[in-house]
Amino acid sequence: MADQVSLDSSSGQNFWHMEYMEPGLIQGSQITSVIFDGRSAYQATQIIDTQPFGRTLVLDGKVQSSEIDEWVYHEALVQPAMMAHAAPKRVFIAGGGEGATAREVLRHTDVTECVMVDLDEEVVELCKQHLPNHHQGAFDDPRLTVLFADAIAYLRDNAEPFDVLIIDVPDPLEGGPAYLLYTQEFYALAASRLAPGGIVVTQSGPCGPTNVTEVFSAINKTMGTVLGNTSPYRVYIPSFGTMWGFIAAGLPNSPSVAASTATQVDERVATRLSASLKYYDGVAHQGMVSLPKYLRTALDRELRIITDAAPLYSI
Amino acid sequence: MADQVSLDSSSGQNFWHMEYMEPGLIQGSQITSVIFDGRSAYQATQIIDTQPFGRTLVLDGKVQSSEIDEWVYHEALVQPAMMAHAAPKRVFIAGGGEGATAREVLRHTDVTECVMVDLDEEVVELCKQHLPNHHQGAFDDPRLTVLFADAIAYLRDNAEPFDVLIIDVPDPLEGGPAYLLYTQEFYALAASRLAPGGIVVTQSGPCGPTNVTEVFSAINKTMGTVLGNTSPYRVYIPSFGTMWGFIAAGLPNSPSVAASTATQVDERVATRLSASLKYYDGVAHQGMVSLPKYLRTALDRELRIITDAAPLYSI
Amino acid sequence: MADQVSLDSSSGQNFWHMEYMEPGLIQGSQITSVIFDGRSAYQATQIIDTQPFGRTLVLDGKVQSSEIDEWVYHEALVQPAMMAHAAPKRVFIAGGGEGATAREVLRHTDVTECVMVDLDEEVVELCKQHLPNHHQGAFDDPRLTVLFADAIAYLRDNAEPFDVLIIDVPDPLEGGPAYLLYTQEFYALAASRLAPGGIVVTQSGPCGPTNVTEVFSAINKTMGTVLGNTSPYRVYIPSFGTMWGFIAAGLPNSPSVAASTATQVDERVATRLSASLKYYDGVAHQGMVSLPKYLRTALDRELRIITDAAPLYSI
Amino acid sequence: MADQVSLDSSSGQNFWHMEYMEPGLIQGSQITSVIFDGRSAYQATQIIDTQPFGRTLVLDGKVQSSEIDEWVYHEALVQPAMMAHAAPKRVFIAGGGEGATAREVLRHTDVTECVMVDLDEEVVELCKQHLPNHHQGAFDDPRLTVLFADAIAYLRDNAEPFDVLIIDVPDPLEGGPAYLLYTQEFYALAASRLAPGGIVVTQSGPCGPTNVTEVFSAINKTMGTVLGNTSPYRVYIPSFGTMWGFIAAGLPNSPSVAASTATQVDERVATRLSASLKYYDGVAHQGMVSLPKYLRTALDRELRIITDAAPLYSI
Repeated sequence: MADQVSLDSSSGQNFWHMEYMEPGLIQGSQITSVIFDGRSAYQATQIIDTQPFGRTLVLDGKVQSSEIDEWVYHEALVQPAMMAHAAPKRVFIAGGGEGATAREVLRHTDVTECVMVDLDEEVVELCKQHLPNHHQGAFDDPRLTVLFADAIAYLRDNAEPFDVLIIDVPDPLEGGPAYLLYTQEFYALAASRLAPGGIVVTQSGPCGPTNVTEVFSAINKTMGTVLGNTSPYRVYIPSFGTMWGFIAAGLPNSPSVAASTATQVDERVATRLSASLKYYDGVAHQGMVSLPKYLRTALDRELRIITDAAPLYSI
Repeated sequence: MADQVSLDSSSGQNFWHMEYMEPGLIQGSQITSVIFDGRSAYQATQIIDTQPFGRTLVLDGKVQSSEIDEWVYHEALVQPAMMAHAAPKRVFIAGGGEGATAREVLRHTDVTECVMVDLDEEVVELCKQHLPNHHQGAFDDPRLTVLFADAIAYLRDNAEPFDVLIIDVPDPLEGGPAYLLYTQEFYALAASRLAPGGIVVTQSGPCGPTNVTEVFSAINKTMGTVLGNTSPYRVYIPSFGTMWGFIAAGLPNSPSVAASTATQVDERVATRLSASLKYYDGVAHQGMVSLPKYLRTALDRELRIITDAAPLYSI
Repeated sequence: MADQVSLDSSSGQNFWHMEYMEPGLIQGSQITSVIFDGRSAYQATQIIDTQPFGRTLVLDGKVQSSEIDEWVYHEALVQPAMMAHAAPKRVFIAGGGEGATAREVLRHTDVTECVMVDLDEEVVELCKQHLPNHHQGAFDDPRLTVLFADAIAYLRDNAEPFDVLIIDVPDPLEGGPAYLLYTQEFYALAASRLAPGGIVVTQSGPCGPTNVTEVFSAINKTMGTVLGNTSPYRVYIPSFGTMWGFIAAGLPNSPSVAASTATQVDERVATRLSASLKYYDGVAHQGMVSLPKYLRTALDRELRIITDAAPLYSI
Repeated sequence: MADQVSLDSSSGQNFWHMEYMEPGLIQGSQITSVIFDGRSAYQATQIIDTQPFGRTLVLDGKVQSSEIDEWVYHEALVQPAMMAHAAPKRVFIAGGGEGATAREVLRHTDVTECVMVDLDEEVVELCKQHLPNHHQGAFDDPRLTVLFADAIAYLRDNAEPFDVLIIDVPDPLEGGPAYLLYTQEFYALAASRLAPGGIVVTQSGPCGPTNVTEVFSAINKTMGTVLGNTSPYRVYIPSFGTMWGFIAAGLPNSPSVAASTATQVDERVATRLSASLKYYDGVAHQGMVSLPKYLRTALDRELRIITDAAPLYSI
């Protein structure tokens, strides 16, 4: 823990981002610079530099991703599914506005096409301009197609299958349009757009001892009613202030993400990528999928199934 | 992330515990009740109930352990070493004032003696009285001997060996007497007090992406100069606001904690304990010891060796 | 404004009292010691020492009075009415649990009887024990009678008139029993218990540029419908974080508090008191009653009349 | 005091301005919009909208003036001296970047020339653009000359006298260039630039019970060694979180600001201005100059004299 530190930074900045992580629990980050503060057609949008986390995207008051640890989040979201898949060529991203999810996909030299569908063009433009360390030029890769649309409508209207579908949208608690990307109906739609051996992976909210049943266990339960080989796993994201969960699943014959061996992961990392990773490799994979007892117990006990008619916040 | 919540609780309490976790990063917990506020001979001492974390011990302004997640910390501190040991009978605890470290040791029905040496009698008495969910009666176990003394002096003056030595004292950063329990000299003393096959384990500070080199990597490096089979591992502790590291090590012929297999852990958990665990089992063990790449890299790169003459904060 | 200061005090205390003063405006005071934390039959009750304000009473999460500035509040509440009155002998206090209102009354050597009626015996006992610098022994003065009862019921049931009635209870916003001490009906009852030439004075909430119409102007309007010579005045109370208002009024022939001249105040201060004052004298009196234009405008424009059936929070 | 309010505003904004007002005392204002965040050649500069205070200028982390109460500050700074002067025609302003000090001066229809000398051209440009409710077009008044220079150098180099000199620069505590506008040497220079009957007035820092001796009493003492008719007075400024002091003084034959009668003030307000005021009139004047006893005592006891060689922070 840190020694004596002052609210007043030496630069005389007294701005703080104060976010409730749970009732009665605040995470406060000192802002060193406000890069952008405004409102897109869909959400309050800020891009700030903070002392603990660097360049940070904030939407509707909540940290979306920070320079200091976005690589943990984006490697964890993308690489386990990509490495478990036999040979991913076509990849779909729902959301992913920062461009870092696409960046992780496009590290795979054999990927031929990545379609990213994000609702909010203004936010994506801001990320392009102000989050260079996030996207690292991914938006310029000719294999990437960025569409500004509703991801569900896109998948409904486009039947061509994908090898990997990556869902990188906000938690289903707040009642925005994203909650419909966490329902049984959506996972059935996603299954119908998977090529043989395909894998879906979704960010799935916090999964620490105090918040695992907030959304994580219900998403896992819901995916399991429609998809096979459900693989929950998690990493620690400092700027989210908690452990963060992900769930991968696939068709009945798709490979299980959780079942990837350390050796297999290391071999594929070595042969498939154009650049090395910072978080993910074979040993890290074992750590991510080997869940503590309380977490497995919470998953086992979960009964809630999320549907369009009964979204999570109404169950 | 939580919905709209007010600083004003319904009980009208407006007390908050605000702790800097790093420069520019505050964790604020709403206090629902102040059980004790005072100063022992050694340190400012509070026992509070907080909304997110329940009954919490705070020393010198820093959260020591909270009801809501102390089981994560104490199982992680105690059980990997106890389960890796062939047959632990005599156990030493340095610190451990809450009584929960002893509780985890005494769950082992074959343990015959546990010696706990803590400097601060007043804090231990407060914990006995006010932290019943921490110690759960451990102080009444006839196998437990509690001494109020300096742990180093005790080990120097008492030659009888222990099977497991557990170091549960504050981080070596603040310059209090505890920093001497993280030095090469101390680990040499500890090694001399290990019975054949014995294991030392120490809490080792934060090890998230932003703070792994604060103390964790240096403790690991230092232990490795004196002890064998160094096994760094970590869990997420919400009330500490970060990942928390532990390092176990032993004599050259002692078993490696990291090398315990899931099957072996599950068998020993099933046969050695008088009560079941909430965090630790074979799968959880794999998750704890399988470190992400950045963490292994930080450990590999570390050069600092902590000595009595060059403690961590002076290196 | 202060230089660089740390959240971490040198004593390692990280407790803060955080109080919303208005929507979006927080006053945070560092707590150096928690003297008492509990709940009386009526309200959450804390007695704390804070770095900026010293020993402080907090009820239902709101600062009631602090050692560092209670003399401003209590002199302002008591002395203008006492000095305007021709010869006050019998004084009634509603509320006043800290004992400091009685202390100011009992400084008047000609006062023969002071009846203090407070609802909350537990809070008064706590104040007796822990706020010695507030009451300064006033509870031991044989001229003081302390009753634990409802002040309205007491006045209804006891017809003997008083020279000065002092209302020292919480603002009428929160809907507790105190709101009934700010209604037209109450002021009529108070008028009926005034001896000829008698004066009522009440604390009347904040009256800064941002909050003058919160309760202050409505109380002034309401008193004026029943009582004569309404005299609004105000002082600045640091621990309340704003200007604080008071309103005195009387029978048609009672003296006007606002009309006291500086000379008259100074003469009476010199002859009536057993001890000197720190805030109040003739010049200070002129400053208190000479209101800025915006404040007089707000009073002039106010139309709301508070009644038992239409209390302030419902108007 | 406000009811339950959330850190999360409905707009999803979680930005706060947190400023230490004294050691252990924080004022936190919720930011609703960040208009500008950057650094001029001289200071960190922000223009923000806050929920409690509206459009606000922040320099080096400290609130300079807010839309909601700037009229209190600027009327109090300008009007008492302007109204006490027999017939002010030429006025000098040191600082005053927001343009609101000039606005108050230029309300006087008989003023023929107002010279404003501010060091920081970038801040003045930002104020012109983003603080329209502060300056209200004053920068377009042909009687106003704005120079970007050191005010002391300007006065030293320009001998033509002024009727009123207004010092509107930061407190002398922080050691920036402004501290030299609070010294005996500066007041002697100012006296030499006063026309017969002229008046100097300076903002003079906080003067509440907890902070009156921080700078206010020393400035008053220092002015009195060089100038005559020293008139200290104060108003409450919510966004500064305290009472704020001003001191006017003049040549031996200049009128005393404190001695203006209510009648005289009201007559001059009625005849000299092109627009009405919100805070200041004859009664308000009486309230501003009639200081409480503790404040007059502090002024009487002050011994410190500020000089160029012994500025305040070194005494």
